[in-house]
Parts: sequence; structure tokens; C-alpha cells
Amino acid sequence: MAQEHFADRLMAEIQGKRSQVVVGLDPRPERLPPGLLDEARERSGAPPRAVAEAFFAFNRAVIDAVAEHVVALKPQVAFYERFGVEGMRAYARTIEYARRQGLIVIGDVKRNDIGSTAAAYAAAHLGGDCQDFVADAVTVNPYLGVDGVRPFVDVAAEQGKGVFALVRTSNPSSVDLQELDAGGEPLFRRVAALVSEWGEAHRGESGYSLLGAVVGAPFPEQLRAARALMPHAPLLVPGFGAQGGGVEDVLGAFDEQGGGAVVSSSRGVIFAWERAPYAGRYGQDRWREAVRAAASDMRAELWSATRPG
Amino acid sequence: MAQEHFADRLMAEIQGKRSQVVVGLDPRPERLPPGLLDEARERSGAPPRAVAEAFFAFNRAVIDAVAEHVVALKPQVAFYERFGVEGMRAYARTIEYARRQGLIVIGDVKRNDIGSTAAAYAAAHLGGDCQDFVADAVTVNPYLGVDGVRPFVDVAAEQGKGVFALVRTSNPSSVDLQELDAGGEPLFRRVAALVSEWGEAHRGESGYSLLGAVVGAPFPEQLRAARALMPHAPLLVPGFGAQGGGVEDVLGAFDEQGGGAVVSSSRGVIFAWERAPYAGRYGQDRWREAVRAAASDMRAELWSATRPG
Repeated sequence: MAQEHFADRLMAEIQGKRSQVVVGLDPRPERLPPGLLDEARERSGAPPRAVAEAFFAFNRAVIDAVAEHVVALKPQVAFYERFGVEGMRAYARTIEYARRQGLIVIGDVKRNDIGSTAAAYAAAHLGGDCQDFVADAVTVNPYLGVDGVRPFVDVAAEQGKGVFALVRTSNPSSVDLQELDAGGEPLFRRVAALVSEWGEAHRGESGYSLLGAVVGAPFPEQLRAARALMPHAPLLVPGFGAQGGGVEDVLGAFDEQGGGAVVSSSRGVIFAWERAPYAGRYGQDRWREAVRAAASDMRAELWSATRPG
Repeated sequence: MAQEHFADRLMAEIQGKRSQVVVGLDPRPERLPPGLLDEARERSGAPPRAVAEAFFAFNRAVIDAVAEHVVALKPQVAFYERFGVEGMRAYARTIEYARRQGLIVIGDVKRNDIGSTAAAYAAAHLGGDCQDFVADAVTVNPYLGVDGVRPFVDVAAEQGKGVFALVRTSNPSSVDLQELDAGGEPLFRRVAALVSEWGEAHRGESGYSLLGAVVGAPFPEQLRAARALMPHAPLLVPGFGAQGGGVEDVLGAFDEQGGGAVVSSSRGVIFAWERAPYAGRYGQDRWREAVRAAASDMRAELWSATRPG
């Protein structure tokens, strides 16, 4: 059976679910809902294993809560690596659980290396000898040039997977390199042009490529520029909510159908029960409902803003 | 007890061992010495576990063979991630074994992210809640600017660890971004200046900073430029041997004492028994001796070239 093209699948999900929401699964032991860590400790004992157990229990509950409202889940591998081998097991279990529900999983791994090493990362995260960490798409860092991106694109093309290259990140110091004047224009624009070029041969029926780009929400002007420079790249837009980007900031990412981009929120959804307005409405004991409400609200807010009328 | 400064430890090792050699531990199942994988299969059964077992057995033998000739070991995490949770266990065991022999371990992870995510990576790889993946130093990618590097530097400063930021990588397409004209000079020079600036406050008694840089061997001119722009950054020079860099190419990396830089080889040493001149001299059954000879030869060649007379 031919694999479905990643971008076609992503765009169909956006329209089918009327959602452009990606929820980041970035668990921290110090912010888990009350009781989860204690329960895991009783079952599993030692800290790294108990934390990993609690992470998976938390993620499973979050996935169940948000599934109908999101296009994809995006576990950030750093939070799992922090807890070693057991943490990585929780990462693997999380991916497996989400994919089993039919959800798209974007491994936020920002991997980068050259030649055969990049190929090893691509096998690890997009499909190879072992399925543990295999997601539907990954983020990659383009600083090493096309050698560092092509091995991911090759595996993605073969396996019906996707790749999102960092173009303009959502952090304040992204200006240090990404806004440097590179031959008369900011570096990120050069990177955007390269990403567009590298992905051109890999477009699906939707018109979008399997090679997308990461462009941060807090910089609406750069987002519009990136969209224009990469008309066929699906955009993954982080930095919404907790990092300061609002709905009006991300409008430039979408096409006329409200497609072409997905917006990611982590803390704003998965820890929604900690803060207003959800804290007052639900309380700690009803944290799953707070998480669901936050995802649902974000979905409605984005969809209505990008599909006016 | 006060932690020894990473750069001071590295420089003392160079002089103490009269070596500037780093051996990359980049195992691949298809290139392991005959018998290792079969033995592991008999002991451990299923593929990912057997491969991981074989990787650790191989690495342990390589570490034993090269220990007296090298300043550090550099496992490339991609090759372990490829085999999932079990692969990561082999990575953890490899680091633990090498450090137990008193050897410096540089985790070649090229991690990069922002703020609290970068802090989670730093905890994972330089010291935090769980020791599994904790090495003495790591490589990081600077595309996200100082936000993406500072969390690593902070943990390194606290824990006596080191960080090597990618400046000019050893691959052909490193030119795609790193040689772009950035305000009148190639981008990598701007990055080198930033790395120098970021590391300035973290110099040890040797004069070198805990923040070093990765600059590839195949580009001697860029290596000299990088050395001049980052006078206090320890340099990690990959791309020696298999990737085409020779002794004459790397001379510009060192200070007058032959210090300030280390040169890394992976395939050229760990698979030395496959190729001339070592294949003819040792044969498959004596692969450990071939590995030892390759490390010893590389050490002698570099040391005599950089410490003339």
C-alpha cells in the first residue's frame, strides 16, 4: 500500500477536525497534577522510573483529553532525556500511545548532524531498525546545511513522514544569528529560501511539501515573510500562549482555507489547571477537564479567526 | 570540594598524556568485528537488545584498547538512538564505563533548544536529576542564539563540565549557511565571535574557557580563522581521517604547547582493522590491536607535528 504523503495527511486532518492545534507534551515532575507522582512512586519505587511512569500516566490522560481537539501531539524529547533511559522509555510509550489513537506525532527533537550520522537520527525518529522513537514527523536544525537535512527528507519521503526545519525560532535571542544581515537580508530569510528549495521536489497532492518549517508566533512580521518565502512548506508555529504569541500574531501563517500551518502550545494547555481562567473553573481534582477546555478554547479561537465568516 | 575547571582538566590531560586524540564511539551493527553480534544475540535474543549489548561490548574493548593514547572519548548519540531505549542504555553504559576509567567523555549530542528546554537537555547531559547520559562535555548547536547555549554553560560552570558549540562543521554543505556573507564576513566568523564572547567569563587557570567550539579539519583556513577569533575556546576538530582532513590541515588549531585543541577520529580508529595499513598487519581476529595501533599512530603523528623539536 502506498504511504499517504505527510503534508496531505496533515492538511486533511486540519480540515477534518477544523483544528490547527498542536499540543506539546513537555512534562516536568514539579508541575504534575497532585497525586500522579506519588502513585507512580508507590508502583515503581526509585525516582527516574517513578518519574517516567508518572510522565506516561500524565501524557496518556492529556492525550485522551485533547484528542478530539488537536491535529497533532508534540512531545519535546529534552524533558524525557532528563530522566535517562527510563525517561526515554516514557517518550517511546507516549509516541506509541498517541499514534495508536490515530493521532499525528511530531517528535520535537531538533536533531542535526551530517551524512551517515544524520541518517542514523532519521532512522531513529522517522523509521528504521527500531520503532521506539519513531514519530510521524520531527524537527531538525539546519545550521549544517542540506547535508544535515536531506537524510531526514529521504527517510520521510520513503516512509510517508514529515520534517520541520528551524527557520525563525520563538526565543528572544533568535536574533543573534537568525536576524544577522546575510547578503542584504536577514539570515532566516536565506534559510527559508533554502528550505523551500530543498522541499520543492517533495510536494503532495495538497501542494504542500513534506519539508516544513518552524517559525515562532511572537514575530508576526517574520512569520508573514516566512510564509511568503516558503509557499509550499507546512509551518509549525510554537511560542503561542505562554511565550507571548496571540491569535492575531499567527494569522499570517495560514492559507485561505485555514490550512498550511499548525500552532503549538505546551504549558498553556497541559498545565492549564494551574492558571486562570481554568484554575478557578475546575480546580486540581478536575485537571483533565481544564486541559480539555484549554485545547478546545485554543482550537475555537484559532479556527474562527482564520476562517472568518 | 571545588570542581576542577573543564578546560584546565582537558589541557592537563593533553600535556600529561602527550596526546590530542579524541576517539569517536560511533558503532554500527553492520561493521562490528566478527562474532560480537552473534555472541550478543545468543545472550540477549531480540535485535535491539542484542545490538545494544554488542555495542557496549565493542565500545568497552575499544576504550580499553585506546585508553592510554587518547584525551577523550566521544560517543555520537545518534548511533545509539537508532536502537531506541536499549540503544540509549548502551550509550549510558558506555559513558559510565569510560568515566570510570578516568577518561573524559564528550557526548556528541548537538542538542539545541531554548530556555527551560535547553535547561532540561543540560540537566540530561551535563548533570541533573538522573546520571544516565551525563558526560564531561557536550556539543551544542548555536542556531538559536545565546538563549540556546547559556543553559548548557550555566550547568557546565556549576558542575565542572564543558560545552563545544558548532562553529564551522566538517561537511561539504556547511557552506550553505556557515559561509553566507553576514555583514561583510562569513557567518561562521560571526558565530565564532559570539562563542568567544559568551565564553569569556568562564575561563579557567589554563586561560581556556569551558565553552569551546567545533571546527572541522577539512578547512584549514577556516580553522586558523576560528582559532584567532576564539583565542580562549578549546577547539574540537572532527573530520580527521575518514572525512579527509590530514595532520597539516589541523595544525592551525593548536597553541605553542600543542594544547588548546583536540582532534577527533571515529571510523579511522574504531574500524581500523577493516582497512590498510592495519587490515594486512592484524586481521579480523586481532581487531583490538588494530584499533590500538590506529589510536597510537594518530597520537604520535599529531604530537610530533604540533610539538616540533
